[in-house]
Amino acid sequence: MQEGSIYVLRIGHRPRRDVRITTHVALVARAFGAAGFVLEGGEENLKSVRKVIGHWGGTDTFSIRAVSDPKRFVREWKKDGGKVVHLTMYGINIGGESLESMQHHGPVLVVVGAGKVERWYYENSDWNIAIGNQPHSEVAALAIFLDRLSGGLELSKGFSDAKISVIGSEHGKNVQKRLP
Amino acid sequence: MQEGSIYVLRIGHRPRRDVRITTHVALVARAFGAAGFVLEGGEENLKSVRKVIGHWGGTDTFSIRAVSDPKRFVREWKKDGGKVVHLTMYGINIGGESLESMQHHGPVLVVVGAGKVERWYYENSDWNIAIGNQPHSEVAALAIFLDRLSGGLELSKGFSDAKISVIGSEHGKNVQKRLP
Repeated sequence: MQEGSIYVLRIGHRPRRDVRITTHVALVARAFGAAGFVLEGGEENLKSVRKVIGHWGGTDTFSIRAVSDPKRFVREWKKDGGKVVHLTMYGINIGGESLESMQHHGPVLVVVGAGKVERWYYENSDWNIAIGNQPHSEVAALAIFLDRLSGGLELSKGFSDAKISVIGSEHGKNVQKRLP
Repeated sequence: MQEGSIYVLRIGHRPRRDVRITTHVALVARAFGAAGFVLEGGEENLKSVRKVIGHWGGTDTFSIRAVSDPKRFVREWKKDGGKVVHLTMYGINIGGESLESMQHHGPVLVVVGAGKVERWYYENSDWNIAIGNQPHSEVAALAIFLDRLSGGLELSKGFSDAKISVIGSEHGKNVQKRLP
């Protein structure tokens, strides 16, 4: 893990119910500048994310992996000097002090739950942060968190190994394909 | 429709495949200060959103409805003087000029697609806006758009008719229930 880098850990993934939401969480991590995505669950749940990376880039700059014991992952993360942020509507609303101290810390692991999250994560995270205290979406919460943490700077990023990319246009589609 | 208010129109909803994503889109609309949510599809797809509004509030301040002809809805919106923003990864990246001009216009309808969006929406929207030109999530795109448009001001909002609400806490859950 690198100084200043951000990883996202998705816990509690329910293979059928959460398959699309978890994919959205992973793609948000990638698009908003995280260095990696870690899923509690089986490797087979990462198929569609791998496909996106293969087309749109990130093979070298965005790592993905599955783990079977996420608590152990968190414990080792902290032992290595990393900080842990758990996104939850029960936490302290984002902004101000906590955001600044996260920006000045070492690597940050952002924990994103599905369904009910075990008390352990509330107690063992350095920060429990709410993106508003209303129920909405872990996909939205992660996006806002990463956007605020980076000061909005990650949204224009590209991936050098992309086979396909988009050039924004006013009323149509402009897709660039790189010749093999 | 009111001066300055924002509505979200979700098009192309596929009842089985998109059920949870569409619910997340609607909840993001509510949590990030939109005045209403409009779904292309049947009323039965709005059940879980109605349930959240019943518990967490918004009966009077957040309207939801289903429409069968979304293009007609867009045409009438524009005829009434409203503006239309279509969120798409093929559009112009958010920020700067376009955001400012949206903030100074009348009511804004934010169109959010599922799967492939018909050319008609690209051509008939006042703005096609990208939240980055990478593939990620319509849930994330809507959240970032509303967050940026409101200048981050909507995230601390409450709903006066809530039966249940959360007070953010550092390492636990603090839920307030209103007596009936």
